[in-house]
Amino acid sequence: MDKRPIGIFDSGVGGLTVVKQVMKVMPHENIVYFGDTARLPYGSKSKEAVTKFSKQNVRFLLTKEVKAIIVACNTASSNSLEELHKAFDVPIFGVVDAGVAEALRTTQNKKIGVIGTAGTVRSRAYEKMILRQEATMEVFSKACPLFVPLAEEGWTENEVARLTAENYLEGLLAKGIDSLVLGCTHYPLLKRCIGTVVGENVKLVDPAKATAKQVKLFLQEKGITNLEEKTGERTFYLSDYTDMFYSICQKALKQGYHPEIMDIEQF
Amino acid sequence: MDKRPIGIFDSGVGGLTVVKQVMKVMPHENIVYFGDTARLPYGSKSKEAVTKFSKQNVRFLLTKEVKAIIVACNTASSNSLEELHKAFDVPIFGVVDAGVAEALRTTQNKKIGVIGTAGTVRSRAYEKMILRQEATMEVFSKACPLFVPLAEEGWTENEVARLTAENYLEGLLAKGIDSLVLGCTHYPLLKRCIGTVVGENVKLVDPAKATAKQVKLFLQEKGITNLEEKTGERTFYLSDYTDMFYSICQKALKQGYHPEIMDIEQF
Repeated sequence: MDKRPIGIFDSGVGGLTVVKQVMKVMPHENIVYFGDTARLPYGSKSKEAVTKFSKQNVRFLLTKEVKAIIVACNTASSNSLEELHKAFDVPIFGVVDAGVAEALRTTQNKKIGVIGTAGTVRSRAYEKMILRQEATMEVFSKACPLFVPLAEEGWTENEVARLTAENYLEGLLAKGIDSLVLGCTHYPLLKRCIGTVVGENVKLVDPAKATAKQVKLFLQEKGITNLEEKTGERTFYLSDYTDMFYSICQKALKQGYHPEIMDIEQF
Repeated sequence: MDKRPIGIFDSGVGGLTVVKQVMKVMPHENIVYFGDTARLPYGSKSKEAVTKFSKQNVRFLLTKEVKAIIVACNTASSNSLEELHKAFDVPIFGVVDAGVAEALRTTQNKKIGVIGTAGTVRSRAYEKMILRQEATMEVFSKACPLFVPLAEEGWTENEVARLTAENYLEGLLAKGIDSLVLGCTHYPLLKRCIGTVVGENVKLVDPAKATAKQVKLFLQEKGITNLEEKTGERTFYLSDYTDMFYSICQKALKQGYHPEIMDIEQF
């Protein structure tokens, strides 16, 4: 029995799709979320910058006495997770590991597509980890930098979104993939559009779901689940004020929260 | 006669379109450019964050002994110029002032459109300054957050760019504007696409050009022009490494430069 919260950090507000899955799978756990809205996006930035930012984010969450941390941001998981494991003792989970496991369970023809930010694709983290576990797999990756601003603009189902998805995905489809990893926390917001473009025969893999299940199992094994009956408390911190928090909150969590603004450069 | 460089800062690499105009109008001046690539974009962030970042950028440029500073970023010019004038003694020029003067010279029917980032449009800086100088003007503004990622993706003339421009601009066209201010340094990279959508009867106003002319005049009046015969030296600093520097450099300046990476959070 352990009431300490689970810490979740993301480059901004996309990580709320991970919060959604954690709330669903572990409704009684307390959650502290940090979104680095002052320095978002991480996807176009270097490994060094992303790792520096991620360490500051972990140091901040540690002040909230978290019992485990989820790196909701795919770019940070891909580029910085190893460094974070070296630097800190707290258990830290990235979305990539669980996403890989789910993709391996999903594919039938061993051809997996991965879409993400430029930083995630450049890191080749998904590809390397999939091949380490199953060398016979074929992995095809594509950076889709316009998907995040489209999701944030709320253009998730219009003609611009459809054409953009077609432009980005036609190369992957030509390779004959049968599963597609949504390797960025914003992409589930475009799920319907992406699903229409790839068709029914390509299964979409959402690493957030798999991550939530993995963390639940870990807490059970360690005996540090929160056994209280009541719904967990959720606290949100951002490094800069943004209207987008509210709109993505409504879309992802179907309810509003008030974030507290703090200065991450102090950590 | 004053060999000290002109300092130019931007949230990232879009400000290279301002460097282009300064090089054209004042080829003998030395230039020190700083692009805040670690924290870009500014366009979606709060006035407080943008002002804090801008002050750090000015403090860094002052270590390079600049004789004047151009705030190439429209978001920073719109939100933070007043604060910068209060905090520092060095002459600081924003792109908004010159852009406004040029728009007033361009319009015939007194209906001016302004496009920019969410932060620039929210600040209403263009609108307020135009109306202060000519109360009979009508100003119509529209935030176009997808234009920057489109320009950075190199999608400047495809179908997605055209549809996005149509979506964003149809409301302004319906108002009968005859001139359109490109209120973000990236937008000149989309000039052809935007020009096609608005048609020949709407003149595009580029604040970068007007700013370069304004600064040239200022240096002449103060007698601090660099009178050397040789082409000025151009030095580039970024707060994070990005491939985009090279592609935008080629597009805007038609030549390559090597940027130095430094840590802006120290300033």
